[in-house]
Amino acid sequence: MRGKKTFVIIGLGLLGGSLAAAIRRRFQSARVIAASRTRRHIAFAKRKKFIHFGTTDLKAALRNADFVLVCTPVDTIPGLIEKIERHAKQGAIVTDVGSTKGTIVRSADRMQLQRVSFIGSHPLAGSHLTGVEHAQADLFEGCHVFLTPTSRSDARALRAVKAFWRKLNARILVISPEKHDRLVSEISHLPHAAAAALMHSVSNASLRLGASGFLDTTRVAQGDPNLWVPIFLTNRAHLISHLRRLKKTIHDLEGLLKKRSRQRLARFLRVASLNRRGLS
Amino acid sequence: MRGKKTFVIIGLGLLGGSLAAAIRRRFQSARVIAASRTRRHIAFAKRKKFIHFGTTDLKAALRNADFVLVCTPVDTIPGLIEKIERHAKQGAIVTDVGSTKGTIVRSADRMQLQRVSFIGSHPLAGSHLTGVEHAQADLFEGCHVFLTPTSRSDARALRAVKAFWRKLNARILVISPEKHDRLVSEISHLPHAAAAALMHSVSNASLRLGASGFLDTTRVAQGDPNLWVPIFLTNRAHLISHLRRLKKTIHDLEGLLKKRSRQRLARFLRVASLNRRGLS
Repeated sequence: MRGKKTFVIIGLGLLGGSLAAAIRRRFQSARVIAASRTRRHIAFAKRKKFIHFGTTDLKAALRNADFVLVCTPVDTIPGLIEKIERHAKQGAIVTDVGSTKGTIVRSADRMQLQRVSFIGSHPLAGSHLTGVEHAQADLFEGCHVFLTPTSRSDARALRAVKAFWRKLNARILVISPEKHDRLVSEISHLPHAAAAALMHSVSNASLRLGASGFLDTTRVAQGDPNLWVPIFLTNRAHLISHLRRLKKTIHDLEGLLKKRSRQRLARFLRVASLNRRGLS
Repeated sequence: MRGKKTFVIIGLGLLGGSLAAAIRRRFQSARVIAASRTRRHIAFAKRKKFIHFGTTDLKAALRNADFVLVCTPVDTIPGLIEKIERHAKQGAIVTDVGSTKGTIVRSADRMQLQRVSFIGSHPLAGSHLTGVEHAQADLFEGCHVFLTPTSRSDARALRAVKAFWRKLNARILVISPEKHDRLVSEISHLPHAAAAALMHSVSNASLRLGASGFLDTTRVAQGDPNLWVPIFLTNRAHLISHLRRLKKTIHDLEGLLKKRSRQRLARFLRVASLNRRGLS
């Protein structure tokens, strides 16, 4: 790598802002540029010293990019990769932080990129908090990051993206885009859907009495719908199949209650309790 | 009240232990006695100065009781109220901390208590942590406590139980046992059931990758099945009806995904997000 590497971050939300801050901390000689459509976010990120420079002009931002991170809603990422291919420097490495990978990675493969190389990333570092105001330089320390190369991926780009996340102290897991999407539909999209469904199943009058247990169970439902609608839609097949499974499990639980099956009910709750206690 | 009031706590779990500790702090001239079947819990509570004295002999513990707090699983409470009626001092006030109130309060009404007076209580102060080891003197500070008197309840006893919880800085809500059970089935039993169902809907291989969102959503599933099975069974009619509603909501969400209804999906997630943001 040359002395002054230029990182370009597209999109200044929680993840874009946190990545900028993390890069400033871990790549101290690098230049960090942000492209965002929201001047207020650029001003905030500059004031916080997350970035050296920000612009609403994507083309200008990309001119000297060595490493581009796309941090926008998942449905906008394929279009941005096309623009990066047209405007970035020859040899630039491109990655993203989208929560679904199949659609994005398959689109990138179909583009047959010539000037730049793309590797899909997904750091499991989101939060119900959104926006650059909540950005933190240490958001990725110790967090899992999925990398989803395909048979068409450039080995040099994969090495560079791995080295990037390692520098941020993230824990890398290489996985196919298909396996990734199935996995996160279980551990992230399904809980989000369940939490939102729970919010819709409780009357407004009761809501205000929800104590810590209720607040925990529904916390992720606060997520930004502008991010989550495209996530759900790009991963709908998996999510539908998991929602069916959840519906069936709830149906079975209902059956145990109807039949007053004390022992089977105890087993149901015990398995859930022991498995959950094993996690943290 | 006389100079040296005797509180008797039956059952030394999270709530019994916390109540003992809270009484020691807020009623400094009172005597705090615990009855428990587990000598280890008595020894722990004595060592921590939660109680003055503990015994496995319920009858002996009750002999000088002015105020009795039943802190055992909900299905054991009616039987204990009968024993308290037989063995406690004339005029003793009795309350409990059970998470369902209908069965308990109706049983107490049917007993036509002569020597003691019972008022049902339910502090919304549980936790996924269980056991006297996690007891805290400030568990009830600022928490909501439901009191569920009926037309047969003794007005003097209601005043005494109110005064008791007020002294612990809890926020009192007087409500009928039936309304209480419907309400908590929504804000407490349904989320618990949903969290347990979620644990059963995710494969073991995926579980270990669950990040903070997954951990939040499933946290309450850690609860002790010995407490939760009787809660679910004594409140089964309400819980069954709420589980049906949740199943229907999940089914509707599945429909939106199948039809790729972007706008209706956005509305579904937006309403959930806004309502949840309104809570904390």
